Parts: sequence; C-alpha cells; structure tokens
Amino acid sequence: MAQRIVVVGGGAAGMGAAGAARGADPSADVRVYTEFEDVGYSPCGIPYVHGKEIPDFERLFLATREAYAGQGIDIHYETRVTGFSAEHKTVSVHGEGEIGYDRLIVATGFNYASPGVPGADLDGLYYVKNIRRAIEWDKVLDGVRAAVVVEASPLGLEMVTALCHRGIETHLIDPGAWALSVATDPDIIAPVQESWQEKGAKLHFNTTLKGFVGEGSLRAVATSAGEIACDLAVVCTKKEANTSLARAAGLRIGSAGGLIVDERMHTSAPGVWAAGDCIEVPHSVTDIPIQGLSGSHAYSQGKVAGTNAAGGDRRYQPVSVPWGMVAGDWMIGGVSFSETLATALGIPHVVGVAEGISRARYYPGVEKVRVKLLAEPGSLRLIGAQMVGREGIKERADFLAMAVRTGITINDLATMENVYSPPIGALNEPIALAAQSLLAGLGS
Amino acid sequence: MAQRIVVVGGGAAGMGAAGAARGADPSADVRVYTEFEDVGYSPCGIPYVHGKEIPDFERLFLATREAYAGQGIDIHYETRVTGFSAEHKTVSVHGEGEIGYDRLIVATGFNYASPGVPGADLDGLYYVKNIRRAIEWDKVLDGVRAAVVVEASPLGLEMVTALCHRGIETHLIDPGAWALSVATDPDIIAPVQESWQEKGAKLHFNTTLKGFVGEGSLRAVATSAGEIACDLAVVCTKKEANTSLARAAGLRIGSAGGLIVDERMHTSAPGVWAAGDCIEVPHSVTDIPIQGLSGSHAYSQGKVAGTNAAGGDRRYQPVSVPWGMVAGDWMIGGVSFSETLATALGIPHVVGVAEGISRARYYPGVEKVRVKLLAEPGSLRLIGAQMVGREGIKERADFLAMAVRTGITINDLATMENVYSPPIGALNEPIALAAQSLLAGLGS
Repeated sequence: MAQRIVVVGGGAAGMGAAGAARGADPSADVRVYTEFEDVGYSPCGIPYVHGKEIPDFERLFLATREAYAGQGIDIHYETRVTGFSAEHKTVSVHGEGEIGYDRLIVATGFNYASPGVPGADLDGLYYVKNIRRAIEWDKVLDGVRAAVVVEASPLGLEMVTALCHRGIETHLIDPGAWALSVATDPDIIAPVQESWQEKGAKLHFNTTLKGFVGEGSLRAVATSAGEIACDLAVVCTKKEANTSLARAAGLRIGSAGGLIVDERMHTSAPGVWAAGDCIEVPHSVTDIPIQGLSGSHAYSQGKVAGTNAAGGDRRYQPVSVPWGMVAGDWMIGGVSFSETLATALGIPHVVGVAEGISRARYYPGVEKVRVKLLAEPGSLRLIGAQMVGREGIKERADFLAMAVRTGITINDLATMENVYSPPIGALNEPIALAAQSLLAGLGS
Repeated sequence: MAQRIVVVGGGAAGMGAAGAARGADPSADVRVYTEFEDVGYSPCGIPYVHGKEIPDFERLFLATREAYAGQGIDIHYETRVTGFSAEHKTVSVHGEGEIGYDRLIVATGFNYASPGVPGADLDGLYYVKNIRRAIEWDKVLDGVRAAVVVEASPLGLEMVTALCHRGIETHLIDPGAWALSVATDPDIIAPVQESWQEKGAKLHFNTTLKGFVGEGSLRAVATSAGEIACDLAVVCTKKEANTSLARAAGLRIGSAGGLIVDERMHTSAPGVWAAGDCIEVPHSVTDIPIQGLSGSHAYSQGKVAGTNAAGGDRRYQPVSVPWGMVAGDWMIGGVSFSETLATALGIPHVVGVAEGISRARYYPGVEKVRVKLLAEPGSLRLIGAQMVGREGIKERADFLAMAVRTGITINDLATMENVYSPPIGALNEPIALAAQSLLAGLGS
C-alpha cells in the first residue's frame, strides 16, 4: 500500500517537501493542507509589485493548481489543520475530521511578532504575507497619502523602497540606531539611508512604537518621538516560528523559538519531520540555533524533509546565511555576522574593510563596492562579511557563505585570483582588497 | 646604501613589482626600463575604446608620469634594455651603457605568435598592444570597410564584438570548430556566436590562415576556405612569453615557454625575479606549468616579485585561472578546464550542467545562466567550470576558482546556501543546480 505523507503548510518548505517526497517515492500518497487559497507563488515578490518594479501579481505564481495535481500532489486548499498526534499518526482537519498518515511534515511557517501596543485592531495595518490580501492592499495603496513602516527588518527595507517608488510619503520607525541594525553595520547601510532620503523617505531611528491611533481607521502612529500622521502602517516586525500546532502535539521547541530538528529535518516526535520558518537550525560558526531564514533555505529544508520522510536519505548542513537585497539605490548583502552583531554576541573577531570597484575604473557603469570581512583571531577563518554596491553582491555573498562553511581564511582570500575584464571586473577584486587590508592591520 | 632594484618592463607586472618593492623597502632605489612611451595604463581597455563603449583613450591611463615620480619610482621611458648579466649584476641599456643593480625583476611580457604566413609585412595588419598605436589605429578604423580577425582568442572575441559595434563588416577566422575552442565548450559559446551573427559578423571556423594578400597594403586574407576581401586584419594569435633577454642571459625556460620561477617569483638566476606574461606558473589541479594569464595575474605576480626582491617574503599560489568576458551580447567565463580541454588532456572528469536564472523568474531583466561543472571522479573535487549568462559571471568564476584551489566538492556545491531576493538572485543558484545535476547523473 502506498505510504501516506501529509504536509501541513503550502509555502516554500511545504511545497518543496511535497515535491521531494513524490520524487523519492513516486508511489507515495502525498497530501498538502493549506489554510490559504493558493500555493506555489512567491510572497517575496510582493513588495516589488507594490513598488511597480513588477507589473502584476499574476507573475508571482509559479504553477497552477492543475500542475500540482498533475504531479500527483493532492492539495487541500483553505483547509485548516487544528492539531495532530504523533502517537496516533493522525491530523485533525477542520471539515475532514481525523486523517491518518504514515509520515508527517510540519511546514507551518511564521507569524509576525505582535507589535504589542494599543490600536493593533484598527483598519489600515498591513502585514505583508498572503498574495490575495496583497492584491487588495495594492488597490488601497493608490489612495494612501502617508505610510509608516514599522521596523527596519529586511521586509521593512523592501517596503520603504517600494512605497517611495510608489510616490507615497514614507516614514520608517525603528528602535535601532540605523536600518537593519542587527544584520548590518552603519558604514554599510549609510549609502542606502542617503538614497532613501533623496527619495523623500523620513527615517526615524532610536524610535519605538507606542501605538496605532485612530477611530476605526488608522490616522497616526504613536512613537517615542511623537505622532506621525498616516493612513497606512506596514507592520514588518520579526518573523516568529509558527509552532502552535507542534507545541500542542508535544514537539520540542528550541532556544530560538523554532522546532528542534536533526540534520535530516526530523523533529523530536517519531514519524514527524519539519522544515522552513517554523524550525531552527545551527549556525555553522557558533553552532547556536537560528530561525527565520530565506525562502531559499525553506525550500532546501523542505526538500531534505520530504526526501527523508519518503524513505530517502539527505542531510542539511549548518547554515552560514548569505543574504542580500536591493535597498534604495543600492545592493547590500553579507554572510553570518556583522561587526555589530559579533560584538554584541561577544564573538572575538578581527576586521578588514576596503572600498573597491565593480568594473575597470574607466568602464562606464563602474561603481564602488565596499566589503568588510570578519575573521576569527589567530586562525583567520572567515566568520562574517558585509557588502554594499550596485552589482555582484548576491554572487559574492554566496561565495563568502561557502567560505565561512568550509573554513576558508583571510590568507586564502587575500591571495585569491580574480577575473579581470574591463566591463565586468576590476584589476583588484574588492573581497581580496578587504582581506589584504585585514592582514595589513595585523601587521602581517 | 640604498639597494638598487631594476625592473625591466613597464606593464602590469613591472609596475606592480616596482610599487611593491618601494612598499617593502621605502629607501630602495627603484628604476623601471620600458621601451614604450607610457606606463600605467590599461591595454585591456583598448578593444572597448575601439568599440565605442569607452569614449576615449585618455581614460585608460591610471597615473601620470609625475605620479610615479612622486612615488619614488624612476621610470626610463622609450629605453631599450639589450641584455643583462646575473653574474655581473648589470643590465645593458641602449644609450645608458652598463647599469649595475642589486636586484633585478624581469617583466618583459609577451609577443603575439607570428602568424607564419606570407604577407605579414603588409600595411593593414593590426596587433593590439600599445596605446599610442591603438590611438592611431582607431583613426584608421573610421575608414575601414571590412576587417578579418585572425584567431578566436580572448582578444579576438573582444575585437569581433568591438568591430561589429563600430559598424565594420567583420570576419572571424579560426582553425577551431568554434570560438575560443581551447577554453570553452560549444554549448557555452553557442549563444555568443548567435549574437555575433545577429550583429552581422561572418564566422569562419575550421579555417586556417594561409596568407595576407595585397601590394603594399592589405586587400584580402587568404584562408583554407578561400580569400576574404578586407582592408584590415587584426592579428590575435597566442600570446607567447617574451623571454629573449632572459634566455640570452642563461635563465631557465620551462615547458610552456615561460621563465621558470619558484613560489617567490625567483628565477633560476641568483638575484633575478620575474613576473607576468614572461613566466609560467603551476596549475593548482594538474601542477602543469601554464603561461599567458590575465593582467590581474601579472599585477599580483609583480607584487610578489617586487616584495621579495626588496627583501620581503611573499608567496604566489598555484593558479586556478578564473576568466570571464563580454562576448557579443553575453558574458562568458569559467575556471580551469572546459570539458573539451579536460578530454584533450586526458584528465578524468565527470560533468554536470544546468540552466538556471539570474533573478526571480518573474523579475524584469531575469536572464538564463548556464553552468557546467567538472569534477574529479570519486573525490568529486571541482576541477573546472564554464558559464554563460548576462550578469554575475565574473563573481561566480572568482568563487569557483577559490573552490578549485581549496578542494571544494560537488557535494559542497550541491548543498550551498544562496541569497534569494527577487531583483538579484533566484530561489535556486545555478551553480547548485549544476552540482545537483552532476550528482543525479551519478545516481547519488
């Protein structure tokens, strides 16, 4: 008899798991439950449709309902799972009752942290997540005069840029001293903040949210620095692991608030795997569990979970977390620790910084690329990087994430070879310059 | 007394060496001899001025004569060195006589291989090298109707693209079956060749040069496939190490035709270092010496030679040779071995290929990125890569060169983390897809 594999959640992790399970066992009966109307679209694209960089929401859909059905994946849309029992191997499904399974994959994703202030029930608070709601909110944006983005998280940065592009008076409030202050250093984010200001954005740092103000509808956001009049608040608080079902079923939760899984994405409960924003995974440098990574991480974890749930054998590596984004007129990115974060966590480090260029210095379109590298003292193993530039940031972050994971040192990077071709690469690679600068600072 | 360091050659290697020597010993008396009128410019930019991507030749100059003088580097321009003696520690300089030195750095660069056919003395043959000649040739190009580019070398590819942009009827002849056939595979170069043809270029592969035809001035190029009428031939033959002085002085020459140096860039003669296109260095995978690398390699080698000549201690690593360029409407690049070259050299290998995308599939400007990876059977260590795309090729080639050098495997690449952000990176990194494809082909 075909094994019954149930996936709870239709995001990147859930759909990655469902596809991988079918791949590993083509005879498996794979069923996905989602409370939403859709699966197989890219929520990461939503801010760019709002910003009009992408012309319509339809493009964000990867596959039709029919395509999934054709792959043998049975998706139950708008169907809420209210609980599961690892002991009885059942999920409780609203409207379906108790459904038996052989293997279960939990991919319940995240919830935005509650802002925890008065007025959170007013109309005019937008949490960017579901595409149907985004389509409705996009129409609302046409009439919005002023918006406040609450928290300079990665999504917050994308939404500031998008709302500026949309011609809306845009405010950003954040308790940190600069944008994305956990992940980036001030010298990296400075050009981004300048470019937002050129676009007219009002940046309110060292500013905490006190409440949402209005009668029925939002008319202002109250902050530690006074009220900001607005008709929209985009709430971009931290993404917290959505573990309510798993917690009720007795699965173990870790220090970062995510489900604890092993390298095969197996949870603490027999026959139950998990993947995506609802789990936590160890960092490759510190072994400390972290949570709330990218859609790419969720998808990869889903594939590992799905493969293993169906009887295969795949492992997931500790993460180094390359990241990158467009913010204002710049690209920023990095891997693992910023100087700020390493300092805050008490992780010993030495630092090198250099400002290089993206093409030959005389080639049209040449732009500066600032690179900062963090290394472990003594061994000089790379443990972090930060970058700001206008091209090639994603690829460099991917490179440096592999460097962190495999133990590449500053000496390796200082002597790296690089492509030199005027339209695409400068004589000196900025990463190498930063590594050389670090060594020079050590007097070596 | 200050040590006297003499550098023969004012290219990237020579100027890198001179600057590094001053850096390592600020009291050193550093003198550079060059037969040309200029140093400190980028010959690599010349094809792009011809193609009008760069508006003028002046931009290719990095520093003025005064700037070098200010750095304490004494440059003797238009001055020919006719010989040297490592025994007597002298260089013979035309017009200056015998000049004593304490340390000598040979950076005599390359010569284009002689085409070895009749008519090579006709007017209308252009060897792209010196900027003053390039400025003169650029005026000639205004009146050129048809041009033949001889050999699909990297420079040949740049010149085909430049001449097409210039609106000149452009022919390319090459004995290989496709462009850059030593470095690239046919599936990688195919889109480049298509884009040239769209620009009107005439590609003549499997075609050998038989002679240059004309009376005084070139009127045609004779080939194994007949004559091609033209008023210009751009001779882009192989760059051969220019070792005539060193050979006469008794220095050892290696199997690739370059000067043999150790990891400190020291030659076989006491007190003599060398760097750049006149030397050969071992490949990191095969240990086989290779020669004729990039300006970035020359500059790095020069810095190592100059530092060591002045009394410092720096080492140069075996090379993995990342390369990349714009050709037609595409970027191509890679590292170490192509499938073609590995097969020709009898290097055992397994291959994985994937076609990924450069941004989220729905983001404007998304382009395909084809990646091919070669690995050593068994260990699955990366030994080569090839890529074609429209962005991010240089940065990926740099990454993969470090991967080759440090022994990163296909398993590492198949499980690499990547930045996922719609405007700059897709859910799945093309490198990871190619590695996964390789593993799938092995049945693992």
